[in-house]
Amino acid sequence: MQSKVAIVSAYMTQFGELWTEGLRDLAEEAATGVLEATDNSIGKKEIEALFVGNMASGTFTGQEHISAVVADAADLIDIPNTRVEGACASGALALRTAYMAVQAGFYKTVMVVGIEKMTDQTCPGKIQETISSSMDVDWEAHLGLTFAGVYAMMAKAHFDQYNTNRRHLAAVSSKNHTNGSFNPRAHFQRKFDIDSILKFPFVAEPLSVMDTSPISDGAAALILTHKDNARKYTDAPVWITGSGQGADSLSLHARDSLTSMKASRVAGWKAMREARITPKQINVAELHDGFSISEIIGLEDLGFFIPGEAGPATLEGQTALNAKYSINTSGGLKARGNPLGATGVAQAVEIFLQLRNSAGNGRQVDDAQIGLTHNIGGSGATSVVHIYSN
Amino acid sequence: MQSKVAIVSAYMTQFGELWTEGLRDLAEEAATGVLEATDNSIGKKEIEALFVGNMASGTFTGQEHISAVVADAADLIDIPNTRVEGACASGALALRTAYMAVQAGFYKTVMVVGIEKMTDQTCPGKIQETISSSMDVDWEAHLGLTFAGVYAMMAKAHFDQYNTNRRHLAAVSSKNHTNGSFNPRAHFQRKFDIDSILKFPFVAEPLSVMDTSPISDGAAALILTHKDNARKYTDAPVWITGSGQGADSLSLHARDSLTSMKASRVAGWKAMREARITPKQINVAELHDGFSISEIIGLEDLGFFIPGEAGPATLEGQTALNAKYSINTSGGLKARGNPLGATGVAQAVEIFLQLRNSAGNGRQVDDAQIGLTHNIGGSGATSVVHIYSN
Repeated sequence: MQSKVAIVSAYMTQFGELWTEGLRDLAEEAATGVLEATDNSIGKKEIEALFVGNMASGTFTGQEHISAVVADAADLIDIPNTRVEGACASGALALRTAYMAVQAGFYKTVMVVGIEKMTDQTCPGKIQETISSSMDVDWEAHLGLTFAGVYAMMAKAHFDQYNTNRRHLAAVSSKNHTNGSFNPRAHFQRKFDIDSILKFPFVAEPLSVMDTSPISDGAAALILTHKDNARKYTDAPVWITGSGQGADSLSLHARDSLTSMKASRVAGWKAMREARITPKQINVAELHDGFSISEIIGLEDLGFFIPGEAGPATLEGQTALNAKYSINTSGGLKARGNPLGATGVAQAVEIFLQLRNSAGNGRQVDDAQIGLTHNIGGSGATSVVHIYSN
Repeated sequence: MQSKVAIVSAYMTQFGELWTEGLRDLAEEAATGVLEATDNSIGKKEIEALFVGNMASGTFTGQEHISAVVADAADLIDIPNTRVEGACASGALALRTAYMAVQAGFYKTVMVVGIEKMTDQTCPGKIQETISSSMDVDWEAHLGLTFAGVYAMMAKAHFDQYNTNRRHLAAVSSKNHTNGSFNPRAHFQRKFDIDSILKFPFVAEPLSVMDTSPISDGAAALILTHKDNARKYTDAPVWITGSGQGADSLSLHARDSLTSMKASRVAGWKAMREARITPKQINVAELHDGFSISEIIGLEDLGFFIPGEAGPATLEGQTALNAKYSINTSGGLKARGNPLGATGVAQAVEIFLQLRNSAGNGRQVDDAQIGLTHNIGGSGATSVVHIYSN
């Protein structure tokens, strides 16, 4: 299928613990921001539908029907709004649903908003409980397994099978913090070297605090349009050339492997086939580093490295800015932050900036032409990959 | 746009307070049931994607990422699964998203499951709180307004403007209970006459218990396929000939009218235009009677009657089985039950049965050829209308 869909504008709010910003504030800023960020003027009347990625506003803020709230805050109440959810992959799923709708000709121009307000909790335990609701509650969470615990098991298995070690994981976090230090919208903008990272306490052995992504608030937005309209809004559209979605068992015990995610392999293969590219052609990629181990596994599942090589390659600097592959130039989930439903959209925002050579000082990839985003839901039951070109 | 999408199988579980059935049980039954109900054999391998309508599993059962749970229970873990949410319209939104994906050629054959498990609550107040999360929490629920209260205000305004009265509302409930008495899967299967309905206590004046739909558990499922495959699975496919989605402000105070829903007018107009029909041509329709007043407003918004006439027409029997229009032959939300995310899919199941002349003794419409479903989210911020033909 020949892609007919372009991204013509992208915006992300500050990510972080935004105590003064409610869900409506974030929605309003993202929607207004993405309209204003368009090179040539785009009016609200030209937006024909709104797709919202959000994982858990019901439990986090007591509000379901969240796409209607975003529409309200964005002053877009006259157009159809739809929320799409797939745990931490909700953002990419909203993008994929919007892409399908435009590709099919149901709408010409649509807005995608990813949003999550995680910190408005009176009870801190509630946040972890909600995050855990992205994995299998009956088989895993109710038995006491935490979300970090699930990824810790994957890390242990990877250590066992491939001699991956904690220094490899720390190299992921260190690299992403370095990239994030150049991103003024990132939750954390501070560099950490590997040795200091290795001193942080464990959350679930072998994963420490520095192997996990933070609890963040934030929103991100995109405007997608049919190719016939793209040049009306910008001289430099970014094309979505491939979209793939994969799935696997929600609970770990029913999977074929703990060291690889079938959902990501399938999603990556489908997206790359649609875009007619191989991993070698990708200049810049945002991978789902909800935990450091998930970036390692993602690098292998998507074909950047063969299984077992991603850890050492990361430690050697092959995934740093302008090295072999520039991975998580935004800072990734680790440093940019991980407001669950916003994350997948924020990844696309970063690729949009990179492919337009406007990521700014310190994190711009030289001559980036092909980009990839990789967004995982839960512990790998859902994975969504998109390919972009300028 | 010429529709290329057929429904080739439909199934719904028992609706009711299903104390022995969990979310997984309902998902498994619906998915297995819809595969087995197909006229000609259809294998799981032929289903290429799963779309799940669910409003609030996060708050009801502590499980987000619900489409992955449904996939797991249905033994469909290898295909992409996506949850779509728009409050009580989640089911129809999942159907619409699946319809778009098949129409666009992304998938040939897909399954749609609508599901909600509402009764697994230790705290009864939690159910009402979650239902209220479908309206504007900041502007309405936090100030003490209940979901019934919102519809009570609409009813009061309708009474005021058009002389609609409680007897008109009771006629809606009585008619839907009569229809439901012939539906073995309905939550309530008992007839009530108008005078006995008028004796029930108020929930929010002028709405009594008998003006509201019950808290139900249940699931419903459909199989959609591209027209090229339809005859492979059945000799009697039901075609989706129109799909429309409308929106309005989530909170009542920002609406133009309390006696009409703009979202329904837009959704109905779009769906009927796509199907090239007028309301007069519709033989059977499932309208969103979450409250009795919403069926009255829906009859007017969709053009079955001019504003103010739907109440008297209902009292005269014009919306009864095989009268002028056969409305809510399943029993509607009032008697069939209202498991939020399942409702929109269950409406399509009923139309599928009606257009195949297989609704069974007591509620089959004579010579039904064109059907409509109408599913409202919240108090009317979202509305989704589909048109079907045999």
